[in-house]
Amino acid sequence: MVRSYSKTPALIALDWGTTSLRAYLLDKNGNTLEKKSAPLGILKIPDQNFDTAFEETCGSWLNNGLQAAPILACGMIGSRQGWLEAPYVPCPASIDQLAKHLVSVTTKNGRHVAIVPGIKTINSAGVPDVIRGEETQIFGALKVAISQQLFILPGTHSKWVQVIDNHIEHFATFMTGEVFAILCEHSILGRTMNGDADDHAYFKQGFDYAMNENVNGAGLLQQLFSVRTLALFNRIPGEALHAYLSGLLIGSEICGAEKMFKPETSITIIAEPALAQRYQRALGYANISAAIADEHVTARGLFRIAQVGNLLK
Amino acid sequence: MVRSYSKTPALIALDWGTTSLRAYLLDKNGNTLEKKSAPLGILKIPDQNFDTAFEETCGSWLNNGLQAAPILACGMIGSRQGWLEAPYVPCPASIDQLAKHLVSVTTKNGRHVAIVPGIKTINSAGVPDVIRGEETQIFGALKVAISQQLFILPGTHSKWVQVIDNHIEHFATFMTGEVFAILCEHSILGRTMNGDADDHAYFKQGFDYAMNENVNGAGLLQQLFSVRTLALFNRIPGEALHAYLSGLLIGSEICGAEKMFKPETSITIIAEPALAQRYQRALGYANISAAIADEHVTARGLFRIAQVGNLLK
Repeated sequence: MVRSYSKTPALIALDWGTTSLRAYLLDKNGNTLEKKSAPLGILKIPDQNFDTAFEETCGSWLNNGLQAAPILACGMIGSRQGWLEAPYVPCPASIDQLAKHLVSVTTKNGRHVAIVPGIKTINSAGVPDVIRGEETQIFGALKVAISQQLFILPGTHSKWVQVIDNHIEHFATFMTGEVFAILCEHSILGRTMNGDADDHAYFKQGFDYAMNENVNGAGLLQQLFSVRTLALFNRIPGEALHAYLSGLLIGSEICGAEKMFKPETSITIIAEPALAQRYQRALGYANISAAIADEHVTARGLFRIAQVGNLLK
Repeated sequence: MVRSYSKTPALIALDWGTTSLRAYLLDKNGNTLEKKSAPLGILKIPDQNFDTAFEETCGSWLNNGLQAAPILACGMIGSRQGWLEAPYVPCPASIDQLAKHLVSVTTKNGRHVAIVPGIKTINSAGVPDVIRGEETQIFGALKVAISQQLFILPGTHSKWVQVIDNHIEHFATFMTGEVFAILCEHSILGRTMNGDADDHAYFKQGFDYAMNENVNGAGLLQQLFSVRTLALFNRIPGEALHAYLSGLLIGSEICGAEKMFKPETSITIIAEPALAQRYQRALGYANISAAIADEHVTARGLFRIAQVGNLLK
């Protein structure tokens, strides 16, 4: 059965990360015609059989007259553990550099899948940092007319990315989400937690503690113990410790990132809505205003890279 | 069978923590006549049957003519989860205050066990902190002639304790050991670790990174990601990542503690030898010299508190 599209599909765009694969069928203006999602992240695919995962997810498109549609993927699919490694491009990196360094893998059915490279930077102490996938979201969210833009991509590993004149200039990773998860699950701090009410007042209390000038210098290892003692002295109820710790860690991240990035410019948060709103609220406590990017940034970024890379027919 | 002691036992001293129970039989000068150790920490005793654990460990002493010997315990046995809660004494706290606030529990065989209270402090942000067990070690290590002394008790939860004129004046807890353990075991950082060679050069590299002025402001959540990227770019071999992370976390602790305590005075480390030496080496990298306390501080501290509290016959 051949299906007809009201607009002509121009690109199959793949957002292929560690835990999931999202596929977008885009028209020649970059609008999404169809979307598919599968729990086929690169760490979840048996025997790294990316070919089969791709066919399972996008096969219906490919068998419906789109054999010739160009395919572009971003995310961990381009890592060493992915389908084909797309080596990191150094900073400062423009969308042209990304398009120039696409790599291409050929499926068993003879289709070409282009993959966007990640980006690497080196900090002042000579230590590298990396993003992979976020570069595509950023070029999908970028407003080309604004010279200085700061992007915050919170999550398991939060990325703060500085863009100057449409180049990704430098960035830093904060392990906020992962540290939060393992502290809740595996440390003594989790033992007194009792549920996870999304309590804004206790979130702010944790945030303020992390930002407190008098205690901030002592560092996170010291601040964390407050979760224990405030529970011990019944100053925070068990069901609010989760929110307090979340505020404390996000506060620690924002406090550190502020020193690195001095955010006086346009700031955009890229994340799913609940997390984006939590960061927007936290940034507000620090008198930093930030916009939240729309949900189409990844598909749009892939489309823009495909345009610049002349992948579109 | 009644056993004879060459010197008369004057005190049964118990160091009773979360994971183990150590018992000392002390003579009237505080010297150790005998020592016992059992994996009967308060979290390891079925049904919190402390009475049985005590009899199992010290019964042979009690049945050998020491029925009347006074018994003094310190550590988590005095916590809410222990045998009897010995409420925290506020800072500044002297050995007299500790002796004045001993609590006493009577065993099923009618013996009295006195328990040393912990100490609480409140930091400048109004957040409490606590020690329990460490106060006894400190009064066992204290040199009464020295006005300002700083004690470092590294471990799962590292304690930095400032003593002024023989009073515990204030202190802070750093969750260094616990955070290290859960990062190695449960985070992405552990995935590239391959063994745990005690490599001093990589330990120092991690330490220096944490102490680096240019990166320190970014905070620990950001610094931690270096363990990932230095592995990714083959800058640190898998078997040295463990030492690098250890240096990074101990560096973060020392950097924070330096800001809180400005350690210009006599510094003493209280810990088992390998850990004490690791901290001594790390402090040396930061040009801070520290002595290591001998292994008798806990027994000596219990003896001194017993003296002040008039427990000795």
